[in-house]
Amino acid sequence: MTEIKATNVVWHEGHVERSGREKLLGQKGCTIWLTGLPSSGKSTVGFSLEHALMQQGRMAYVLDGDNIRHGLNKNLGFSAQDRTENIRRIGEVAKLFADAGVITITSFVSPYRADRDLVRKLHDEAKPAMPFIEVFVDTPVAVCEQRDPKGLYKKARAGEIKNFTGVDDPYEPPVKPELVLKTAEAKLEDCVATLAHFLRQRGILPA
Amino acid sequence: MTEIKATNVVWHEGHVERSGREKLLGQKGCTIWLTGLPSSGKSTVGFSLEHALMQQGRMAYVLDGDNIRHGLNKNLGFSAQDRTENIRRIGEVAKLFADAGVITITSFVSPYRADRDLVRKLHDEAKPAMPFIEVFVDTPVAVCEQRDPKGLYKKARAGEIKNFTGVDDPYEPPVKPELVLKTAEAKLEDCVATLAHFLRQRGILPA
Repeated sequence: MTEIKATNVVWHEGHVERSGREKLLGQKGCTIWLTGLPSSGKSTVGFSLEHALMQQGRMAYVLDGDNIRHGLNKNLGFSAQDRTENIRRIGEVAKLFADAGVITITSFVSPYRADRDLVRKLHDEAKPAMPFIEVFVDTPVAVCEQRDPKGLYKKARAGEIKNFTGVDDPYEPPVKPELVLKTAEAKLEDCVATLAHFLRQRGILPA
Repeated sequence: MTEIKATNVVWHEGHVERSGREKLLGQKGCTIWLTGLPSSGKSTVGFSLEHALMQQGRMAYVLDGDNIRHGLNKNLGFSAQDRTENIRRIGEVAKLFADAGVITITSFVSPYRADRDLVRKLHDEAKPAMPFIEVFVDTPVAVCEQRDPKGLYKKARAGEIKNFTGVDDPYEPPVKPELVLKTAEAKLEDCVATLAHFLRQRGILPA
């Protein structure tokens, strides 16, 4: 039981600072908030960015429907109130990951401006503030509907799904997003390169 | 916008596996769940472990009342139902951090066996399963009450706080915890060394 003592650990009962974790990881914690219509390409961009960062030895993690809707938020539905609570919880979890020093990537439609602004506020008010990078995945609804890999637009048009964003529920585009990605025009690798370039510019990744 | 392309990134739209993140970090993701009476020493042990791991270049993060109760769970009170939801959400977030490859340390009284067992189940049922290490911080209530750094036992004895664990609300000790730490008898550094030794034995830290 002396292994740790042998490595000259300084005993300290206080918290490890975020800056300490960031130094260890060689990056800054942040939240990259991807927002856009269903099938706009958020998850494809998010997971591709995660892959690219990992290959450069950077620590990233994607929060998306798969690991959130079946876990933390499985007790939430799709009412206006539940949608707001859904985004609030995701925002709080993203903030925890960012505080841990992780480049946190979230991939949710997050259609309402007020909900996204609340998450930005959470990050702005952290001490010290955490970078919140709102990325509008700006794909025309016609393109999203043509992609429709899960057949959800088809079901929504047929009335089998109600309150589907882009069909019978509104999407409020960001007013001043940090980045706009046009997946119908740009290649995936260029979208990812744009994001990585932004992270270097902001000092989140080393130059 | 060609910086990433120049580093021979292989484009991949699939998820990064947990094992990839673990390889990058040189450790395995896990949840170390500290449970015990108020003032039993959970946070002191948790933050000391985080510090010791950081000094060895390991990636750890503590979830505790400070970053959870004022954030993710600020809309929960102390009713039985809310306490259960509190622990469920913390368990889900810990699981996300463990999935990210982080040595996740949680510091909550978590007095009810059923709630802790639910969190263990979440980790057991992950694919692949994630290590869930239940650590009973076993400090006699008399010692906790003597420490009482925030004066909470005093207030509970005076009836100013109701449903206070250890005074008028039950604490159900773990039946088969992975570890028991006796902070009234062992030094802090020995408690931390015990934890680190266990992490090496389990292959979570390199030997």
